[in-house]
Amino acid sequence: MTEQGKTVYDAKPDGHQDIDAGRRAMMAGAASGALGALLGLAATPAQATSGIGFVGRAQAQGAAATTPAGAPWWPSRWGADDQAGASNWITPEKVLDAVRLIRTGKIYEMGHLYESAMPKFGERSFALRIPGGPTGGPFGANQVIWHDEFLATEIGQVGTQFDGLGHIGVAVKGQDRAEMRFYNGLTAAEISDAYGLKKLGVEHVKPIFTRGTLLNIAAVKGRNLNLGEEITVADLEAAMQRQNLAADAIKPGDALFINTGWGALWNVDNAQFVKGEPGIGMPAAQWCIQKQVCVVGADSWAVEVVPNPNSNLAFPVHQEFLTKNGIFIHENLNLTALVAENVSQFVYVMAPIRIKGGTGSPGRPIAIV
Amino acid sequence: MTEQGKTVYDAKPDGHQDIDAGRRAMMAGAASGALGALLGLAATPAQATSGIGFVGRAQAQGAAATTPAGAPWWPSRWGADDQAGASNWITPEKVLDAVRLIRTGKIYEMGHLYESAMPKFGERSFALRIPGGPTGGPFGANQVIWHDEFLATEIGQVGTQFDGLGHIGVAVKGQDRAEMRFYNGLTAAEISDAYGLKKLGVEHVKPIFTRGTLLNIAAVKGRNLNLGEEITVADLEAAMQRQNLAADAIKPGDALFINTGWGALWNVDNAQFVKGEPGIGMPAAQWCIQKQVCVVGADSWAVEVVPNPNSNLAFPVHQEFLTKNGIFIHENLNLTALVAENVSQFVYVMAPIRIKGGTGSPGRPIAIV
Amino acid sequence: MTEQGKTVYDAKPDGHQDIDAGRRAMMAGAASGALGALLGLAATPAQATSGIGFVGRAQAQGAAATTPAGAPWWPSRWGADDQAGASNWITPEKVLDAVRLIRTGKIYEMGHLYESAMPKFGERSFALRIPGGPTGGPFGANQVIWHDEFLATEIGQVGTQFDGLGHIGVAVKGQDRAEMRFYNGLTAAEISDAYGLKKLGVEHVKPIFTRGTLLNIAAVKGRNLNLGEEITVADLEAAMQRQNLAADAIKPGDALFINTGWGALWNVDNAQFVKGEPGIGMPAAQWCIQKQVCVVGADSWAVEVVPNPNSNLAFPVHQEFLTKNGIFIHENLNLTALVAENVSQFVYVMAPIRIKGGTGSPGRPIAIV
Amino acid sequence: MTEQGKTVYDAKPDGHQDIDAGRRAMMAGAASGALGALLGLAATPAQATSGIGFVGRAQAQGAAATTPAGAPWWPSRWGADDQAGASNWITPEKVLDAVRLIRTGKIYEMGHLYESAMPKFGERSFALRIPGGPTGGPFGANQVIWHDEFLATEIGQVGTQFDGLGHIGVAVKGQDRAEMRFYNGLTAAEISDAYGLKKLGVEHVKPIFTRGTLLNIAAVKGRNLNLGEEITVADLEAAMQRQNLAADAIKPGDALFINTGWGALWNVDNAQFVKGEPGIGMPAAQWCIQKQVCVVGADSWAVEVVPNPNSNLAFPVHQEFLTKNGIFIHENLNLTALVAENVSQFVYVMAPIRIKGGTGSPGRPIAIV
Repeated sequence: MTEQGKTVYDAKPDGHQDIDAGRRAMMAGAASGALGALLGLAATPAQATSGIGFVGRAQAQGAAATTPAGAPWWPSRWGADDQAGASNWITPEKVLDAVRLIRTGKIYEMGHLYESAMPKFGERSFALRIPGGPTGGPFGANQVIWHDEFLATEIGQVGTQFDGLGHIGVAVKGQDRAEMRFYNGLTAAEISDAYGLKKLGVEHVKPIFTRGTLLNIAAVKGRNLNLGEEITVADLEAAMQRQNLAADAIKPGDALFINTGWGALWNVDNAQFVKGEPGIGMPAAQWCIQKQVCVVGADSWAVEVVPNPNSNLAFPVHQEFLTKNGIFIHENLNLTALVAENVSQFVYVMAPIRIKGGTGSPGRPIAIV
Repeated sequence: MTEQGKTVYDAKPDGHQDIDAGRRAMMAGAASGALGALLGLAATPAQATSGIGFVGRAQAQGAAATTPAGAPWWPSRWGADDQAGASNWITPEKVLDAVRLIRTGKIYEMGHLYESAMPKFGERSFALRIPGGPTGGPFGANQVIWHDEFLATEIGQVGTQFDGLGHIGVAVKGQDRAEMRFYNGLTAAEISDAYGLKKLGVEHVKPIFTRGTLLNIAAVKGRNLNLGEEITVADLEAAMQRQNLAADAIKPGDALFINTGWGALWNVDNAQFVKGEPGIGMPAAQWCIQKQVCVVGADSWAVEVVPNPNSNLAFPVHQEFLTKNGIFIHENLNLTALVAENVSQFVYVMAPIRIKGGTGSPGRPIAIV
Repeated sequence: MTEQGKTVYDAKPDGHQDIDAGRRAMMAGAASGALGALLGLAATPAQATSGIGFVGRAQAQGAAATTPAGAPWWPSRWGADDQAGASNWITPEKVLDAVRLIRTGKIYEMGHLYESAMPKFGERSFALRIPGGPTGGPFGANQVIWHDEFLATEIGQVGTQFDGLGHIGVAVKGQDRAEMRFYNGLTAAEISDAYGLKKLGVEHVKPIFTRGTLLNIAAVKGRNLNLGEEITVADLEAAMQRQNLAADAIKPGDALFINTGWGALWNVDNAQFVKGEPGIGMPAAQWCIQKQVCVVGADSWAVEVVPNPNSNLAFPVHQEFLTKNGIFIHENLNLTALVAENVSQFVYVMAPIRIKGGTGSPGRPIAIV
Repeated sequence: MTEQGKTVYDAKPDGHQDIDAGRRAMMAGAASGALGALLGLAATPAQATSGIGFVGRAQAQGAAATTPAGAPWWPSRWGADDQAGASNWITPEKVLDAVRLIRTGKIYEMGHLYESAMPKFGERSFALRIPGGPTGGPFGANQVIWHDEFLATEIGQVGTQFDGLGHIGVAVKGQDRAEMRFYNGLTAAEISDAYGLKKLGVEHVKPIFTRGTLLNIAAVKGRNLNLGEEITVADLEAAMQRQNLAADAIKPGDALFINTGWGALWNVDNAQFVKGEPGIGMPAAQWCIQKQVCVVGADSWAVEVVPNPNSNLAFPVHQEFLTKNGIFIHENLNLTALVAENVSQFVYVMAPIRIKGGTGSPGRPIAIV
């Protein structure tokens, strides 16, 4: 039996066996001292990040900042062995709560088509081929024929993509894989593998059926946002007010979506689309974390502002969400249909494909009202 | 703009422009005569299929059998240009009807993990690699690192798979691609392409959120079914009775799932799993068609009995469902969790990934009660 | 045993069993009549090509033109079952003859590096990934580690590429795969397959170690040639004269290379590089055929002029060489080093990779003097 | 211009600029002390390897063993920046010397066909698909059609494979990529990358045209060798004697091939083939190194004995050849044709495909006599 995984979901967090918890906590502690010295010598990472609001749980408890992304963030709130992160919020009660939002039965697409022409980050690629024409047959008196497709791509990291917990981490000690830390403190040495992640694979994420809120920042600004434009806490709150959403309209376990207007460039000016983007910065990320959301998504390829206003930082919100808080990021969404009809709240359904050892998932997120 | 596709779903069928309808109907007629003569000469296909219950709509209206799979089946009930097939059943009303089945908020997995070790049909393959270790970074003072995955596989035709309408067809005139017919009479010449289907791609399927019924045939038999064992109409009805389902418990647009027990071999004896399987035959398929279901699924790789009791036929139920009636097939389901808790009816949620030109879709089908 | 293929090469042609020869000749004959009628009705293909010098062997013998590319060209001069084409010229005697050209032992590269940045035709792609970092290890007291690479690409049809005999054919009857004809009259129905060519795969090509001649047309013109500029017989003969090559300097079984200067755009202006090219037209192709060469190559992606001066024709030289005469085409060569040192004649060594069922081969052609 | 690389070969080694030499030498020195301490604490690696003959150049000069594979082996004999390794032996003089072995012009295949059915190491895979049927066309009045192939595989590490210098290294300090050392002391941090090796890619290997000697160990034993059977120096010398080869018959820069008989299992019993193999051990490897050969090949997948008689070691000969001495390894050869005709010496021609950043190369090695 090579398969593993839960098949029924209730209120229990995914990682309830704390077998390795003690060991890892100890390593983290041991590492702290050494790292403190290292960082003292190397200076740059610690200093560069010290003033910009990196606040992990450990740090809040008084511990010193000991990684380039702040204080150790493990063990997670769902236990030292959890691999499901914020999808643990999706309990039966949460599902029932979401269902109440369904009043008309109308479904909206929230994602794009997957195709080779779509914008792609860095060197990622997407090649779809139909083997044969047709692939099989004709066979039998009924002369059956069939087509398959063969796809070679960064499947979980192209197009509309749902980032898993093994996607993003922090290199605490340069090139040492034993000190590259991910969610729950797991290291690259523990999870990384040429043939699929050994831990934190996207198959551990629970199916997500939850309340979703769309905040239309472009509407607040009266224009599509610009490359490098940071979305602030004030922007988020202005959007809530504009959409008549109460201060507590976003509940723990909800999904939050941000319309920046950047998505208007999709398949229109792909070179510009991938060059950077507007998005949330660290303060707005903290606002989301305090709301205890399950997923944050946007009509851009990184959700967060790129480049970051602090030019020393590279994708810090990714670390804040995925690595430190287990909150998922849903990128390259197509929010056009929801925006066109001014839909603010809905059921968001996204069941990440359980590719064993995958870093993310493609998908077809939908909104139901 | 290379993207296309609907983004909001209501009651209208997908293909409402009948631009090509007349032309195709004419071609079908023209082909009939020539094919009649051809089949008269070639003999085998027509004779072999004449006695086994191939009944298309045209045939039921008295037309002669004119393809190796029966009379011409086009235009479809949803119009000559429809590409969405039985997903057209999924209207807002249907969604609301389904939602009523949600009472506890509990979610069940209905699919398997995707992994290279899983059983694969024929020469299909699955190769997942993590480029680099990590793939990117460390970058920035925050020393971000990331993992991607690169996957090369028959993405829509491995593991838990949802067959699209471009997957299966009928070769009416041997190797002539202009006479290989698919759903709505479309030909291989019209849809097949090295870089993705030009029509009938899986991106045209609407998100499916509907009522699902699981019929546990293994429970009726008191054992897992055997390779080549045909599930009959009587078996289906016995299961309904055993599960206290009324005769009209399966409504138009519902999804139907069949537990054969064959799935117990998954990743246990893969060689045996792919060698053949128990499943429905042509009469049971007609029963499903008369129920006007949207999807038929099972815990086996073809849903239908393999080999077919009529040894001249190769996957005839695939043609009956997909090609002739636009009904989707969901294969390699993992029904263990539903069976274990004797769940008969539920909401089935499956939003096929919109891979442009894809023949099918991977997915993570879920059941909600 | 799935492997097949010769492992020692002498003077015998590759296909010496004529099992299917009679059958195919008969089909060709039978097809002629039907196709004559068809073409009489359809008109266009036959008329469009009749005046532009398509001369196959059958046609030369008085047979009527019966395919869109001229008279039937089968059986081949090396027998009806040959799959090695002009590589049959490479006999031990030919090798010994070539060796005489080696006087200094100096080796020149004739190809480019393979990389994702290189120009690619149409929708072909090239994705190289290093799984893991490293891919394996550390293992053992010796702490061994290793890197692999994973490559997804049109392996035989990207970069410096050697076209095999299954690459190019003629559709004699539209979409009918039973009338799509390749080298030796083989049809798509006989050779095409989703998982690799069933016949005419590149594995049948014999290793090529032969005399090579480089004709520098750019030097004749005093400039790099332009897009769409046709190289004529006069150009070829002027180059021979300029390079002091005797009229009989190119012998049967030799390889011929043409420097157009188009290669200067490689990785400099890839968009322009693939937009078209200068190259030989049909008369120059006939000149090559009369010389009975084994391979024709150039510093361009198609060797032949694109677009063809006769705008009705698409890659006619490819058909003339590969399909009708079994002469190989070597594309995207890097002739810079040879040109820089005015090397006219040399040993050309190219052993196409024996990818079973491949349509072409990557390679690292070298010239030795 | 993304391309780089030499295009004409003469006697100069590939890396003649010693820009980084001083820096790396210093790092090596600095590392020695720290590693000595580390190994003193960790004990195992150093002790396990100390008695088994690991002798690097540095060690021979009296330096202490400082890596799990012996003393630092850098800089290389061809300079601190060399990336071509033992292919530097292939000078014009060497080519001329080899040419003298060509007397009949007969060519022998030395490799296997590439196909999905072939035996594959570990999780490597090989998937070939023909997109479309055909891939393109018909186009033009000449109705041209074409086939491409799409291949997804560990291209340089499947089938008959030529290991490049970036393939194998030594992890000096566990998971620290800055201390994983390869040829010339380069580290994983310096060469490893998700999209292709940054240094030591197979494109740096010069085309190999050299004298080859085949030693038939199976003939010496009178039987095919067994799994785990070590080939000794005495075996090699017995083979030379049996084949009437003088003691100096193998010259610097030659290629050496070993027939073990293990290749008889190829595509006959693949499971057994990859389970282990007979091959040379460390003493025989030293014998090869002292002969200063350029390439060592065999009819097995690793050339060296697997498992190693010292069960603590994993592929130590790979490190000895590739990492420490820049000697290439050619695996999965098909020596049948040469063996059948008792060919002892010949010209070996192998021009590794220049896949930028590749770890190895497929190929079609040939022998010419």
